[in-house]
Amino acid sequence: MGTSMNPLHRALFQPRRIALIGASSDPGRLTARAQLYLRRHGFAGDILPVHPREAQVLGETAYPTVADIPGEVDLAYILLNTPQVEGVVEAVAAKGIAAACVLADGFAESGPEGAALQARLVATAGRAGLRILGPNSMGVVNLNDRIACTVNAAFEAETLPAGRIALISQSGSMMGAIMSRGAARGIGFSHLVGTGNEADLSAGEIAGLLVDDPQVDAILLFLEAIRQPHHYADLARRAHAAGKPVIAYKLGRSPYGAELATSHTGALAGSDAAAEAFFRAHGILRVTTLEGLIELPALAVSRCPPARVHRAVGVTTTTGGGGAMAVDCLGVAGIEARAPDAAAAARLDAAGIHHHGRLLDLTLAGAKPDRVAAAIDALQAAADTDLVLSVIGSSAQFKPQDAVAGILRARDAGGAKPVAAFLVPQADASLRLLAEAGIPAFRTPESAADCIRAWCDWLAPRPQPALPAIDHALPERPDEADARRLFAALGLASPFAVLRTPQDAPGDMAWPAALKILSPDLAHKTEVGGVKLGIATPEALVQEAAAMQGRVARMAPGASLTGFLVQPMARGLGEAILGFRRDPEVGPVVLLGTGGITAELFRDVTLRLAPVDEVEAMAMIAEVKGLRPLAGWRGLPRGDLPALARAVVAVSRLASRADILEAEINPLIIHVESDGVTVADAWVVRAG
Amino acid sequence: MGTSMNPLHRALFQPRRIALIGASSDPGRLTARAQLYLRRHGFAGDILPVHPREAQVLGETAYPTVADIPGEVDLAYILLNTPQVEGVVEAVAAKGIAAACVLADGFAESGPEGAALQARLVATAGRAGLRILGPNSMGVVNLNDRIACTVNAAFEAETLPAGRIALISQSGSMMGAIMSRGAARGIGFSHLVGTGNEADLSAGEIAGLLVDDPQVDAILLFLEAIRQPHHYADLARRAHAAGKPVIAYKLGRSPYGAELATSHTGALAGSDAAAEAFFRAHGILRVTTLEGLIELPALAVSRCPPARVHRAVGVTTTTGGGGAMAVDCLGVAGIEARAPDAAAAARLDAAGIHHHGRLLDLTLAGAKPDRVAAAIDALQAAADTDLVLSVIGSSAQFKPQDAVAGILRARDAGGAKPVAAFLVPQADASLRLLAEAGIPAFRTPESAADCIRAWCDWLAPRPQPALPAIDHALPERPDEADARRLFAALGLASPFAVLRTPQDAPGDMAWPAALKILSPDLAHKTEVGGVKLGIATPEALVQEAAAMQGRVARMAPGASLTGFLVQPMARGLGEAILGFRRDPEVGPVVLLGTGGITAELFRDVTLRLAPVDEVEAMAMIAEVKGLRPLAGWRGLPRGDLPALARAVVAVSRLASRADILEAEINPLIIHVESDGVTVADAWVVRAG
Repeated sequence: MGTSMNPLHRALFQPRRIALIGASSDPGRLTARAQLYLRRHGFAGDILPVHPREAQVLGETAYPTVADIPGEVDLAYILLNTPQVEGVVEAVAAKGIAAACVLADGFAESGPEGAALQARLVATAGRAGLRILGPNSMGVVNLNDRIACTVNAAFEAETLPAGRIALISQSGSMMGAIMSRGAARGIGFSHLVGTGNEADLSAGEIAGLLVDDPQVDAILLFLEAIRQPHHYADLARRAHAAGKPVIAYKLGRSPYGAELATSHTGALAGSDAAAEAFFRAHGILRVTTLEGLIELPALAVSRCPPARVHRAVGVTTTTGGGGAMAVDCLGVAGIEARAPDAAAAARLDAAGIHHHGRLLDLTLAGAKPDRVAAAIDALQAAADTDLVLSVIGSSAQFKPQDAVAGILRARDAGGAKPVAAFLVPQADASLRLLAEAGIPAFRTPESAADCIRAWCDWLAPRPQPALPAIDHALPERPDEADARRLFAALGLASPFAVLRTPQDAPGDMAWPAALKILSPDLAHKTEVGGVKLGIATPEALVQEAAAMQGRVARMAPGASLTGFLVQPMARGLGEAILGFRRDPEVGPVVLLGTGGITAELFRDVTLRLAPVDEVEAMAMIAEVKGLRPLAGWRGLPRGDLPALARAVVAVSRLASRADILEAEINPLIIHVESDGVTVADAWVVRAG
Repeated sequence: MGTSMNPLHRALFQPRRIALIGASSDPGRLTARAQLYLRRHGFAGDILPVHPREAQVLGETAYPTVADIPGEVDLAYILLNTPQVEGVVEAVAAKGIAAACVLADGFAESGPEGAALQARLVATAGRAGLRILGPNSMGVVNLNDRIACTVNAAFEAETLPAGRIALISQSGSMMGAIMSRGAARGIGFSHLVGTGNEADLSAGEIAGLLVDDPQVDAILLFLEAIRQPHHYADLARRAHAAGKPVIAYKLGRSPYGAELATSHTGALAGSDAAAEAFFRAHGILRVTTLEGLIELPALAVSRCPPARVHRAVGVTTTTGGGGAMAVDCLGVAGIEARAPDAAAAARLDAAGIHHHGRLLDLTLAGAKPDRVAAAIDALQAAADTDLVLSVIGSSAQFKPQDAVAGILRARDAGGAKPVAAFLVPQADASLRLLAEAGIPAFRTPESAADCIRAWCDWLAPRPQPALPAIDHALPERPDEADARRLFAALGLASPFAVLRTPQDAPGDMAWPAALKILSPDLAHKTEVGGVKLGIATPEALVQEAAAMQGRVARMAPGASLTGFLVQPMARGLGEAILGFRRDPEVGPVVLLGTGGITAELFRDVTLRLAPVDEVEAMAMIAEVKGLRPLAGWRGLPRGDLPALARAVVAVSRLASRADILEAEINPLIIHVESDGVTVADAWVVRAG
């Protein structure tokens, strides 16, 4: 799909005629800014203010209504107050405009009334084929084509560097803040979009429009919430094919941040672990430092995810303390600064550069460009690192040309690995030179470590495993027996029997056995006396069941009791928790953790987008610390981890069942090698 | 102690006559810089170059040797190559100079020969009462008095802002880098010192000299290693009394960083957990971001550690997305952005400021200074927060005076809590205005969270608990029985018996019992068949002991076997590991963790400087996640945590025994409430 062929792309990013509905003629007002900024930054097309009374607005002919504008209009920016928006959207749609950006807030993020208003807005627009950006959108900007259709105050700046990085931000103010931080060090942007509430167009869909744009090399996302996850999946696949990295900063790493993201945008917050799994599965790089967002593109642009990752870098420095600080921060992020291997050491020796240990300190060799270039060149020869980091000391401050020359020379020599720089002192001129040369440069050791970690974490979008349909009927309100039947249909059968009355016989059963009450209403059976373990004989079972029936009826009088579940007592080497969820943001996920209280005390769980294949399941198992003893750790007996992996795959396939909200086996008992796993307790919750 | 009374303080920080030994007459050389920088920055005293051949060096009269300099000299900067340093130190001492700074490297950090050279240097100087700064020192600077006795390239700058913050850095290049980052935003320094190898003067001792200096409000430390910990303890106590915060950035948070700190400075690296405990015990604030080091002083200066900490802040913002980002980063650091309490809410209502939730968003109320001031003022009234953070959006970039005015007004109104600012866009002018006003301001959300976390973690120096002498003789090479006797002397007696031969009777013993081989040589008894559990009778014991003797003698033929240890099998509610170590950097520490493999898998241990009192011990217990089930978690039976706390106190008292390097009880079995604890296994290692 060529970009010029996409009418939405043209309307948003190459409009020639823009209607500013509600444009103010008072240049001090927010609603005058779009017009001012379009002119200031050199918009060559038609600005069409719509004003009920004025014939002119800030020097442009104004029109009383949208309908009065002669000819076609590509884009409308609706600057009116919340109550007026709905009516004018209808008029915009009637005019045949392809896209409208809405500035006002007070929609979904403000409560149920606002949400209803927003829904009506989208429905009206949708019927007419009009796409909506916002509400609560700061606008859309194409810097290369000098189109600044925005009210963001950052565009007060007289000049702004254009570049080849697109920034899509759910927060309008962050769009400006990130741009200003980039501009200060010579990092320019191609497009900037504030997506606000994303009632219609999400950041993922907008980013998708820009993947094929020849002005764009990389796409940055500043996200408070993930909406319409399929757009991100599609975007990421296409971006990977086009060799354009997608980099995200997302709020919600802390519970307070997640809560705010929700209240700020009207979205439901999912878990951050799910968001992390989402980004990784789709090959989207995630940074956790603000400045990492503008520093990472130069590292990722025109590169693919590294084919084989060592999580290791070669580090050369012209400052001992600064280099050690970088190595330490990298280590905290899980990246090893590695000593030169034989190949790199041979090159260093040939160049007469003294080396020992994991930091190549050039302080003695002299920080001259040819020495720096030779050192980087030699470190690039190492077979066991992913990147070369050049740490620069005081020369970056006082001799920027010199400080940068060695790195440039090494880069131009065309080594196989990326070369990046961390500047230890305040070094604005050097940062600018490096930005101009397209060399990744870091202002702090923290963002250096964050970006290099993100680079090492970068994977190609994970192919979606096959998702066979699960043909198994589930009652409206399933009890544990129903959950066990569901898991059996997935291939996870463990022996159990259902008694409708205490007198029923459990049939062929291994003893001792466990007895549990069956009820769709009781999530915590133990607390109402609904669990009895280690029952030795069928006779004892009848007695215990009768006693349990009375006990539970007393303690949980409102609960519907559907019978009893009997299962053989099972003992294994270890226990896991294995669950399926629909995350409110990213959708189906599968999670695996140590069983029992360990998972709770230590949050020892890992998570993936569902479904997963066995390779991914084995990777999950390796991440759960509490399962390590089952992998032959310290000579302990091995558990049946392949069976556990198959169980993870099976449970992850619940993704195909839109009627299932959550399901869990806890504990899943893991037996010794080739003895499989046993479902000890299970539950399922239907959607809706 | 008045500073002018201290001759070392005068020599280092107020020298009037400085000898530059080995000063070069070639201004392009490193060894010419001290002279150039002293002049450039306006040194008013005498510069006395010492040069073997030249009569003048860069316009100053030069002397062939130190002895030839007429009159008294306050400070010598030795710029000679490594081999020449030793001889000249003798001459400097003979001249009666109080302090000499040594530039050359190639001493302790370079290997055994360098270490020997360094030891001779210090001994020579010590005999004459000459104090040494370095070797590998970039010099010493007093900016207020315009004394830049340094070769650090950062002093190329024509002007440097003087301030009231002293910076002591083991890395010379970091000294310049930190200064340059401060200068760029109007944060000036009073003193800058590069302590290098710290053969004699450590950063702690230097900092101690500056505590009483009236030019100094706060002391920053950039550390690779902690040497002479008692100086830091003394410094911190005096700094606390003087109301001057001490703030540290220390390398070694990752194993690679720790390794480098060692090779870079010739010090032995301790554990980072021990360093962390050291800083906390002494009331030294620790930052983990580089820029936090220059941003935190304004928050801590003229304040004491908060008396009662809520780990919570009030946050007001003029940018929704930027505010949410700050809240999220704070949350990741364990600090809650808290919604206004009733008192704060009442003030907000009175001021007509709409509020809901944990972020006070002024976007709608308008970012005018009076609104910002009113909001901060109201949030200061909250009884459950430690600080108010004001997040500023685009106005910080384009209207610095406006952006800062509200914060200034609120600060001047004199609320009880600190007010700090985080500027979301690039906003150099605003940062400078805030620095001038002494208001803490953060450039990134990460450093904001780091500094506020450090502020909430800040404690007054912990008083040293009484450390009674432990009168208990320990053999040269103790076995487990000796370790148990040592712990019994500390008040941690658990029943055991020692058999010299398999036929010996264990006396009064509860059965079943455990049998272990005794040997000072066998750290891992199980692996050589030296442990047998669950022995039911005295007869079985004789048999097992005989079998064990043969088995161990075969499997560990070289080990000296000193007998057998018999102890009753004990079972409790839980198990802990309780240990004592001498950290190579900070000295005696006590550590507590979950017992068994859980501690290893999850690194579930906590650590304090030893000794500790029971209050501190209970705090340690609360930090160990695996011990939570013993505190009545989820209705589980409670363990005897007071007895565990007493055990921690007892073991921590090994600090008084310089002859003990390490000791450990693993596991220490914790019984139900008021049933105490049992030493199940123990060992001790003597020092050197």
